[in-house]
Amino acid sequence: MSKQITEKIRVFALGGVGEIGKNMYGVEVDEDIIIIDAGLMFPDDDMLGVDIVIPDVSYLTEQIERVKGIVLTHGHEDHIGGLSYVLKKVNVPVYGTKLTLGLVEEKLKEAGILRSVKLKTIDAKSRIKIGSTPVSFFRTSHSIPDCVGICIETSQGSIVHTGDFKFDQTPVDGKQADIGKMANIGHKGVLCLLSDSTNAERPGTTKSESEVGVGITDVFRKTEGRLIVTSFASNVHRIHQIIEATAKANRKLAIVGKSMLRVISIATRLGYLEPPKDLIIDLDEVNKYKPEQLVILTTGSQGEPMSALTRMAKGAHRQITINAYDTVIIAASAIPGNEKSVSAVIDKLHRIGAEVVYGSSKVHASGHGSQEELKLMLNLMRPKYFLPIHGEVRMQHAHRNLGIGVGIPDENIFVVEKGEVIEFTNKQARRASKVPSGNVLIDGLGVGDVGNIVLRDRRLLSKDGILVVVVTLNKKTGTIESGPNIISRGFVYVRESEQLLEDANELVTNILKKCMTEKVSEWSSLKSNVREGLSRHLYEKTKRRPMILPIIMEV
Amino acid sequence: MSKQITEKIRVFALGGVGEIGKNMYGVEVDEDIIIIDAGLMFPDDDMLGVDIVIPDVSYLTEQIERVKGIVLTHGHEDHIGGLSYVLKKVNVPVYGTKLTLGLVEEKLKEAGILRSVKLKTIDAKSRIKIGSTPVSFFRTSHSIPDCVGICIETSQGSIVHTGDFKFDQTPVDGKQADIGKMANIGHKGVLCLLSDSTNAERPGTTKSESEVGVGITDVFRKTEGRLIVTSFASNVHRIHQIIEATAKANRKLAIVGKSMLRVISIATRLGYLEPPKDLIIDLDEVNKYKPEQLVILTTGSQGEPMSALTRMAKGAHRQITINAYDTVIIAASAIPGNEKSVSAVIDKLHRIGAEVVYGSSKVHASGHGSQEELKLMLNLMRPKYFLPIHGEVRMQHAHRNLGIGVGIPDENIFVVEKGEVIEFTNKQARRASKVPSGNVLIDGLGVGDVGNIVLRDRRLLSKDGILVVVVTLNKKTGTIESGPNIISRGFVYVRESEQLLEDANELVTNILKKCMTEKVSEWSSLKSNVREGLSRHLYEKTKRRPMILPIIMEV
Repeated sequence: MSKQITEKIRVFALGGVGEIGKNMYGVEVDEDIIIIDAGLMFPDDDMLGVDIVIPDVSYLTEQIERVKGIVLTHGHEDHIGGLSYVLKKVNVPVYGTKLTLGLVEEKLKEAGILRSVKLKTIDAKSRIKIGSTPVSFFRTSHSIPDCVGICIETSQGSIVHTGDFKFDQTPVDGKQADIGKMANIGHKGVLCLLSDSTNAERPGTTKSESEVGVGITDVFRKTEGRLIVTSFASNVHRIHQIIEATAKANRKLAIVGKSMLRVISIATRLGYLEPPKDLIIDLDEVNKYKPEQLVILTTGSQGEPMSALTRMAKGAHRQITINAYDTVIIAASAIPGNEKSVSAVIDKLHRIGAEVVYGSSKVHASGHGSQEELKLMLNLMRPKYFLPIHGEVRMQHAHRNLGIGVGIPDENIFVVEKGEVIEFTNKQARRASKVPSGNVLIDGLGVGDVGNIVLRDRRLLSKDGILVVVVTLNKKTGTIESGPNIISRGFVYVRESEQLLEDANELVTNILKKCMTEKVSEWSSLKSNVREGLSRHLYEKTKRRPMILPIIMEV
Repeated sequence: MSKQITEKIRVFALGGVGEIGKNMYGVEVDEDIIIIDAGLMFPDDDMLGVDIVIPDVSYLTEQIERVKGIVLTHGHEDHIGGLSYVLKKVNVPVYGTKLTLGLVEEKLKEAGILRSVKLKTIDAKSRIKIGSTPVSFFRTSHSIPDCVGICIETSQGSIVHTGDFKFDQTPVDGKQADIGKMANIGHKGVLCLLSDSTNAERPGTTKSESEVGVGITDVFRKTEGRLIVTSFASNVHRIHQIIEATAKANRKLAIVGKSMLRVISIATRLGYLEPPKDLIIDLDEVNKYKPEQLVILTTGSQGEPMSALTRMAKGAHRQITINAYDTVIIAASAIPGNEKSVSAVIDKLHRIGAEVVYGSSKVHASGHGSQEELKLMLNLMRPKYFLPIHGEVRMQHAHRNLGIGVGIPDENIFVVEKGEVIEFTNKQARRASKVPSGNVLIDGLGVGDVGNIVLRDRRLLSKDGILVVVVTLNKKTGTIESGPNIISRGFVYVRESEQLLEDANELVTNILKKCMTEKVSEWSSLKSNVREGLSRHLYEKTKRRPMILPIIMEV
């Protein structure tokens, strides 16, 4: 083997591959570890009761002295939402643009760790050192301002991470992606490109965010009654356009929803939103205006049951109730998994008789580039190696095919899973052994105390409920002192199933009597006899398998 | 008011409006009630543990002597899947085409009621009397052969139900929709049209099923290794084309999955499928052939966790394990709500390294007509009144807008919910009072014994689990005899939460002691004190709200 003349570079994902969400990538240059993003993910349907999911960072805590910093690409939750949890374990400097850090500050304040964290503002022109490695940036366009791609400069070439991007030729803030700089980075030599795969399955080019502005303005112009608009709070460009459309329509804007208020206040304070004076009114003031003078901007675009929009539709919101004269614009698309709940809120609005404007055609555009844009990025960067990231496996594979299409050899493209490490020496890549990775589930205040066993129990409970069997035995006399009492929850209607439960009772009595006659005295055997006998009986009678919890006491 | 010179007609839906699934409609002509379809629906995410959902037919059981028959439009589950449950309560003659009744027979046999039910075969040319009302039919095209629309002839004009339809100009079986007959029915006068709203939001025309055949044949031709194809078992036209493509490719076809085997055997027996001799091989024979000689046709197009395809992908299927040399064609689209599970199976196949062909473009077409076809149906039937049916509320509303577009006055279009009755006298419609309607949930063998309370409990249990608190009190001495013992399931990892549970234990002890000092002796008060105190404490410590089940015994 040839002698190693260059540094050893290792690239891996702790989250964001094989899934949509919780983006977190690691780049090691010899001893230094640089982290890119620290996002959260919303739980899958089978993670019952879980609030959010963050990456497992145990590899970083093991290597804590090597971790030199966390660089952020932009301020969306799937890139910054895990930060406050991660920093509690790995407190290193955080680098990000002004708006990104503005949003981060708020999170750290809530978590009570703002003072102990070093936040370092960068912009697209910055060139900094993290550890001993130079890191530079390039401006990209997405659905929030102040996005950057990251270029980690090594002697083998650059490691480039695109962040989330599309090539928006008419961005809302007029700041186009810096294609020249990207070409320049490509020209100097990119060893490895990590690029956003979200829309790798979509042919063509993603619509410009500005076209959505035209669509929204158009609906505003045609609408005579009150307007209610919902979008992602984090889509600052969209909010920008809703503000402009409101001003053009000579209406006032009232804002509903904690996250919407928070993002707008931060973005306004930092100069990313400049709502005209007196345009935004307090929610308590809406009654001073006629419906045709109002726009209500609210959270709830995903049909979340407790969101402001859903409550307005159900008549359960304190200030606003949607009626048949309202027009509701859903300026967002359903995130995979949310289709049913979005559909349910649209149906609810239709039932009320409100006019509903939805569907991506006019009032929504994706923030992620489609196939032509992904190929453009690949052609600008001309990387030797390519890692499709930020997407489910099928999106990564679709992106791989695009890479092959523009001439990258298949063997230089790595579709990686979480924890897989690609190691570079002398400009040659190879798969190295994995680092620990996984999901950390957050439920309430508990971080990581919900795992497979707890989830398995929740799943069992959710399917057929539970039966608790309480009985007191007198082992000396070999008799049942009291019980068995059977209490069920989530199994059957008790009133309509008296016979079933009486039979169950008798069965348990017989099982226990038999056990005692046969001198079975181990607690665990008694319990498993009850559990198995009762389970079999109930399955025969009902084809259900409730969890059975025998509680046997002794006097 | 003018004297009633005509019969009283009432039209209502017991299922199929405001939802996708469990289609069931009622048409009353004076004293006779004619039922159209009796479908099932798969449960929503919040119907935990429920297997299937059928319409509440209590209105029909109340009026049982008036119900004269059930007419079926076609053999899909959302139109015939509830039949065996309904017939147990309302045993009336069932009318359907040959294939439809072939599929029904199988269901009734399974339910053990085949002998007691009168099945009457009709075809598109039939004109029958149900009760004293003439009923005729017209041929439509959809994704299964032998579909009909239904025309109930009254002195006020016809009540027409389209069934599921598209206008497929090149249907797989060569049997086009009978547009002439539809025009004729329209010409004679349609009082009220009930028409399929599924694709009312989609502009244009739905692709012909035959084009899918071309797409599938194309993939077959290009593929060198083994082919695995999945589709809905009930999509007989699709299966037809897969059989033809297999023959053209000189491969053998092995069939996997109970429902796939059942549908193919019925359709073949009745002459709707005519697989070439020796084309279909037994699954146990696959090892006699090389991969490039095989097509495996399987269930599992919705990514169901226990389906054959998912098991093949996980290596958990007895005969077939998918490998990196296989090509998998998913010739179906995800039903709303199934996006995540379909996506998961595609990801699993990609991880294996298999070639995956999916996405509706080439290998799938909808069975339901788009906007242009829905307008064509409206223009053929030229109904005085129009009920958009078969769809969620937003689809019904989109269909309403199409109706307005072709000139039906808005006030003659009724977007109805389940149970709403539209009553016609002297060719005038009005909304009448509702009939009972709703969901009957089927869980295992239980029909209707799972309702709101049981589901609420399952939801609570699924979110944060359960804590059972067992304690024995001596009321005479006012002391705790034994316990409290706290057992938790689905709440926290017990090993990592010892302190939390110990504290909970102490808290319950204190609550009970206090109760006894204060002479609180009502069981219910004791229990609610424990429940509330413990719940508050756990919420403070964990921000979770497990179900708490206090079991207090007395010696």
